[in-house]
Amino acid sequence: MPPAGEGAKKAAKRGILERLEAGEVVIGDGGFVFALEKRGYVKAGPWTPEAAVEHPEAVRQLHREFLRAGANVMQTFTFYASDDKLENRGNYVGEKISGQKVNEAACDIARDVANEGDALVAGGVSQTPSYLSCKSEKEVKTIFHKQLEVFVKKNVDFMIAEYFEHVEEAVWAVQVLKESGKPVASTMCIGPDGDLNGVPAGECAVQLAKAGADIVGVNCHFDPFVCLKTLKLMKEGLEAAGVKAHLMIQPIAYLTPDCGHQGFIDLPEFPFALEPRVVTRWDIHKYAREAYNMGIRYIGGCCGFEPYHIRAIAEELAPERGFLPEGSEKHGSWGAGLDMHTKPWVRARARKEYWQNLKPSTGRPYSASLSVPDAWGVTRGDADLMQQKEATTEQQLKNLFQKQKQKSETTA
Amino acid sequence: MPPAGEGAKKAAKRGILERLEAGEVVIGDGGFVFALEKRGYVKAGPWTPEAAVEHPEAVRQLHREFLRAGANVMQTFTFYASDDKLENRGNYVGEKISGQKVNEAACDIARDVANEGDALVAGGVSQTPSYLSCKSEKEVKTIFHKQLEVFVKKNVDFMIAEYFEHVEEAVWAVQVLKESGKPVASTMCIGPDGDLNGVPAGECAVQLAKAGADIVGVNCHFDPFVCLKTLKLMKEGLEAAGVKAHLMIQPIAYLTPDCGHQGFIDLPEFPFALEPRVVTRWDIHKYAREAYNMGIRYIGGCCGFEPYHIRAIAEELAPERGFLPEGSEKHGSWGAGLDMHTKPWVRARARKEYWQNLKPSTGRPYSASLSVPDAWGVTRGDADLMQQKEATTEQQLKNLFQKQKQKSETTA
Amino acid sequence: MPPAGEGAKKAAKRGILERLEAGEVVIGDGGFVFALEKRGYVKAGPWTPEAAVEHPEAVRQLHREFLRAGANVMQTFTFYASDDKLENRGNYVGEKISGQKVNEAACDIARDVANEGDALVAGGVSQTPSYLSCKSEKEVKTIFHKQLEVFVKKNVDFMIAEYFEHVEEAVWAVQVLKESGKPVASTMCIGPDGDLNGVPAGECAVQLAKAGADIVGVNCHFDPFVCLKTLKLMKEGLEAAGVKAHLMIQPIAYLTPDCGHQGFIDLPEFPFALEPRVVTRWDIHKYAREAYNMGIRYIGGCCGFEPYHIRAIAEELAPERGFLPEGSEKHGSWGAGLDMHTKPWVRARARKEYWQNLKPSTGRPYSASLSVPDAWGVTRGDADLMQQKEATTEQQLKNLFQKQKQKSETTA
Amino acid sequence: MPPAGEGAKKAAKRGILERLEAGEVVIGDGGFVFALEKRGYVKAGPWTPEAAVEHPEAVRQLHREFLRAGANVMQTFTFYASDDKLENRGNYVGEKISGQKVNEAACDIARDVANEGDALVAGGVSQTPSYLSCKSEKEVKTIFHKQLEVFVKKNVDFMIAEYFEHVEEAVWAVQVLKESGKPVASTMCIGPDGDLNGVPAGECAVQLAKAGADIVGVNCHFDPFVCLKTLKLMKEGLEAAGVKAHLMIQPIAYLTPDCGHQGFIDLPEFPFALEPRVVTRWDIHKYAREAYNMGIRYIGGCCGFEPYHIRAIAEELAPERGFLPEGSEKHGSWGAGLDMHTKPWVRARARKEYWQNLKPSTGRPYSASLSVPDAWGVTRGDADLMQQKEATTEQQLKNLFQKQKQKSETTA
Repeated sequence: MPPAGEGAKKAAKRGILERLEAGEVVIGDGGFVFALEKRGYVKAGPWTPEAAVEHPEAVRQLHREFLRAGANVMQTFTFYASDDKLENRGNYVGEKISGQKVNEAACDIARDVANEGDALVAGGVSQTPSYLSCKSEKEVKTIFHKQLEVFVKKNVDFMIAEYFEHVEEAVWAVQVLKESGKPVASTMCIGPDGDLNGVPAGECAVQLAKAGADIVGVNCHFDPFVCLKTLKLMKEGLEAAGVKAHLMIQPIAYLTPDCGHQGFIDLPEFPFALEPRVVTRWDIHKYAREAYNMGIRYIGGCCGFEPYHIRAIAEELAPERGFLPEGSEKHGSWGAGLDMHTKPWVRARARKEYWQNLKPSTGRPYSASLSVPDAWGVTRGDADLMQQKEATTEQQLKNLFQKQKQKSETTA
Repeated sequence: MPPAGEGAKKAAKRGILERLEAGEVVIGDGGFVFALEKRGYVKAGPWTPEAAVEHPEAVRQLHREFLRAGANVMQTFTFYASDDKLENRGNYVGEKISGQKVNEAACDIARDVANEGDALVAGGVSQTPSYLSCKSEKEVKTIFHKQLEVFVKKNVDFMIAEYFEHVEEAVWAVQVLKESGKPVASTMCIGPDGDLNGVPAGECAVQLAKAGADIVGVNCHFDPFVCLKTLKLMKEGLEAAGVKAHLMIQPIAYLTPDCGHQGFIDLPEFPFALEPRVVTRWDIHKYAREAYNMGIRYIGGCCGFEPYHIRAIAEELAPERGFLPEGSEKHGSWGAGLDMHTKPWVRARARKEYWQNLKPSTGRPYSASLSVPDAWGVTRGDADLMQQKEATTEQQLKNLFQKQKQKSETTA
Repeated sequence: MPPAGEGAKKAAKRGILERLEAGEVVIGDGGFVFALEKRGYVKAGPWTPEAAVEHPEAVRQLHREFLRAGANVMQTFTFYASDDKLENRGNYVGEKISGQKVNEAACDIARDVANEGDALVAGGVSQTPSYLSCKSEKEVKTIFHKQLEVFVKKNVDFMIAEYFEHVEEAVWAVQVLKESGKPVASTMCIGPDGDLNGVPAGECAVQLAKAGADIVGVNCHFDPFVCLKTLKLMKEGLEAAGVKAHLMIQPIAYLTPDCGHQGFIDLPEFPFALEPRVVTRWDIHKYAREAYNMGIRYIGGCCGFEPYHIRAIAEELAPERGFLPEGSEKHGSWGAGLDMHTKPWVRARARKEYWQNLKPSTGRPYSASLSVPDAWGVTRGDADLMQQKEATTEQQLKNLFQKQKQKSETTA
Repeated sequence: MPPAGEGAKKAAKRGILERLEAGEVVIGDGGFVFALEKRGYVKAGPWTPEAAVEHPEAVRQLHREFLRAGANVMQTFTFYASDDKLENRGNYVGEKISGQKVNEAACDIARDVANEGDALVAGGVSQTPSYLSCKSEKEVKTIFHKQLEVFVKKNVDFMIAEYFEHVEEAVWAVQVLKESGKPVASTMCIGPDGDLNGVPAGECAVQLAKAGADIVGVNCHFDPFVCLKTLKLMKEGLEAAGVKAHLMIQPIAYLTPDCGHQGFIDLPEFPFALEPRVVTRWDIHKYAREAYNMGIRYIGGCCGFEPYHIRAIAEELAPERGFLPEGSEKHGSWGAGLDMHTKPWVRARARKEYWQNLKPSTGRPYSASLSVPDAWGVTRGDADLMQQKEATTEQQLKNLFQKQKQKSETTA
């Protein structure tokens, strides 16, 4: 294998479609909001990306780590950077910083780091509170247009419409992004059960491709292995409809065999007690291999994916790609670096068979394997989902606590 | 509660002993080698800190995150930066970079970031391959002296001799560091069973204090709750001997109820499949409270502690300290920030009772709660523990794989 | 509710179809081979019922316990009492005792105990080694005829063809049993995936009903909740085909969420380490209620069902039936009898909410929740499935151990 | 190995002390109240043995099964057959049947079955509600005297004072039983933490031996491995005090690593959801071997021990004893009988290595490994422990439910 990064440099800066059409593997980056929440720069709850303005060095460093891990795409840190989200439920960002400023700062950082290696910049939009509040197509599209203006001005390399629970809104997003003339990828945060309006996964893929998405797939909400099932349905749907699109997958790094159709936000552990569910690098090796074998070529991660998870994708697929990522200079494949460990019994773990077969214990004897997910079963149009500018009131919270108590008693 | 950081600034830059003698809480930082391994800058196996020279921006960013999370101490990233370690088993650092350069770079970064807030710089030394290889007291002390020279030149605020499995070597380290005239803290990576030569925990504490350590305790190898048990024994030992010392605790962020006396390196999951054992922020709240109640005032973390874990210490003890860390501007205490979440059932989790009582599921139905630890039972003097400059050979590895197989068959 | 047993006596001795057509609940008995294995009278491996001859008092006592628990059917203890099974792989029964003698003794015991209460006697046949060895329809039917002769001579009340993995063989059994002119029930030991030749569950039900079975359903191999899923498919299949049959369910008392399509014999724990999977009486309450709600009226159990499990069916459905079983004189519904316990905290458990919501811990921190089942994927016609009169040889066993090792390495 | 039972018959009917002094293994029987509760003849809550009068055939059958499994002792089914218990909290037995009648019937059945093989009859007494209610020594001893009268009249072979939580009461029982002139064994239901008044386990053993017990040890409340720990302490206590006594162990068949000092009655699963904790026969092999190695020669079981568990003791110690129990004619040691199984992958399990190393899964992914035990911390003298003749009232129950709720909230 050539020295890390050598192969990568040769291939630099070809477009996303050029790569995919050549059958190359494109490695996505990992999840920014979760990683930066743990680092202290993003607030769980609103999950908005004002850190691009407030702490650019922290955002830049995370981009660099993903680049070093092997990512070929720097997604602008613009998740939930729509104006209606930045001012939702007491969030100050819309007022103090402005959505435009956040989007611009995110583009600049992504471009700076992308220039340090073989990565493209992708401008990203995601689902809006406006849609959940039943605003019109025109109103929702206006939201997307605002972000698109920045992406065009900053000349990102391609677009991603990601994290949509309803294909209707995702199609609107794709239609807006297509106006840029740039390639468009679109991923939904759905599982094998389909979107929240009941549209099957295969049909979602077809609608997105027909709306103009060059690349379709899923991101977020489900673990790698559940997402692979959804991708299988999407692939079959596209084939049945005779519609072509590249496939893309960016799952979360938390195991979710027990999720309902709204994914990990339904798990009682979301978002502050997901630790025992974090996937290991070896889980990622398995995921990357299966994704590759299914014909998926855009393979990345979402919430919970740390740089070492992305590196594991790059290491698993190194034989196909012909090179290792830079970050592998600090990582022996399949634990090989342990041959330098002081303790002999740890050196004895320096091999693939050991890690591949290990079923890791949890250290939590009072915890179960699976949870009963919350399943309030509400979506677009439900009163509790309406956006509001003012902070959630005490009374609103009390009402929710009450509902929570009732539902858990019914389930038990 | 005053705005984050206000109280902190007023108390800035008083010495470590001044603070502890006033009964203040001193918050330590988290674990550098594990965090930077996940970010792609440290190699698991040698675990050496050459990133201070190779990627200073990554080290600086991690320091900043711990500072922002509330840490009052920036430990120089000099773990395993002794010359004998930097050239052990094929490690190139000693040769290409030199131990001196690594130690100096680490001191500079730590000081830069410490100056950005209310933090002190601590120069750290740790156990040496030389001791395990039965080198003489003089030879081992020479190793420590080399690092000490840098710390004195760079004028760190105090010294930490940490991560010792044998109190004999720890005492040697303390004796060397005391020569600087600066305050000395010393922590051992032992559990309630005592050191690897069989010296009880209480007796270890007494020996360290008698050797001149102003602060004694434990770091690494065991989870917060096991470490609290060890601290209890140390405290009782000191009281029984009528010896005074401040208490310090820096556990790992992995649950280890099943560890033997060598700690988490004995667990089959070490170091690449520990994910399911990661503690939540709520586990840390419990830990910080219990540590405080036991009279421990230097409270931090080690391997696995990410910035949000350190922030949880600062948030739990905010009532006692009178202020919140800067990082809490992006974190509602006990999940309060979730009142801004889009989904109503997640908003319903915005309260202490919810998170305090949750027993998080693992998502791993094929995994058990506990592991049978490796227990090779070898320590100082064992042939397999001897340091060697050249890389571990294929044949050496094969012999170890063989031993591993035999031992696991015996245990089962 | 009338005193235990009063209601039962009034309804005594009406035929099985008369009861089912009136919409009454018919409670089956539990599993004889597993219960008697634990009591020391049946050998795991051959699982043959010679105890009917060798230790009739033990068989009689178990019948009595099921009767007392509320069972309305005494199945003759003739499971695997076909001549080809009684002499398979070194089994001595065929030679020393004869199949006829075993079948007759079993009929006599069942009738004796049935006469002590409101129970019918059902003569039972089950799948044969001959079928697995690809013997002809005629040969297999001859086996069934031999057992049928005894049942007719002993004048049992109705017939059950149970524990069939292939609907083809089950249909042959039904055809033979129908010759008696008595009602015939037929259950297969299949899960939602259908029979081992790939015939879907719904189609199996239809074929059985068309062959003349008055009652169809499943027994053995899967837990109550998996069996309910299979029954749902059978019910839907019958409805779609416009074919009428009563529904019957007799699951095992071991939880099997992780089973493949051959059921619990594929689990690594079968048959000697299934203990942690045993269902509680409260699991049975849930099962009985769901079975009733689905329209199933013949509700019983199979392997692992002890008398207290059968009693739990009778207690859950007591409101519908109007009476409690005799055995309830020693059982307070939903734990009510605990109000007589000496310890106050146990008295506090004397209520439905407590037991209904409890998720019982296992006391096994080194065990996982789920197993990876053996999945050799062989069935009828495979060389290893051929019947042989002589005992399995050492060499045959060694070959199997070898296969086992290879398969587990592939799976891992 | 000689045919099952041959060796046993030769050794028949020598006294308990004669056997133990010769170093022979004496195998106890299993738990009657739990086994008969599952069979429908004992009511959980009062746990009284009126079945000896009401359903003698069921009691006789269970005795026979234990005999067949290898038990050398038939304990009279007189647990909780003291007059004060038979009329406690609404129990009708004292009034309708009388304690004397129950005790006499139990003696007769035990003798009948003992005569069928090589077993002795032991008359058993256990702790009294009177002691918990702070009755005087004289009053409590009167209770024991009443049972003793029956045992003397029926001429049992030796006496067992078992299931005592307080050594004070156990000593009283031993003193009464010694008046008979027969050998006396005494076991307490305590764990390594000692008795409920805080007397250490070792000291308990010494007091019992000094009071005249020829055999001392533990029964009930804890699993085999916890009981072995207690026995170790007892053995050390006896040795330290220079007091001689034979050792005896009769643990429960439920794994209880998470028990507090009151044992399994504190577990939330007691008594109706203990199923997932049931030990396998292979756990028993391990237990029997360790007990033997520790020098214990009276090895049996208590609650949860079914005949096959007792047989596992006899099979594990067959090499030392020179013979297998009768019940082994239906059991191949270490799974050997599986070589007659139809399915090849089950035949592949016919070997010791397979079963010895298996960690059985639970099939319960929503359940944890360990429970937080109830720990009300009340004992003798507490108002809620006072005996009362009338049934527990609704209001009393409500008060207890309230306490339960409060305690569980405090623990969480």
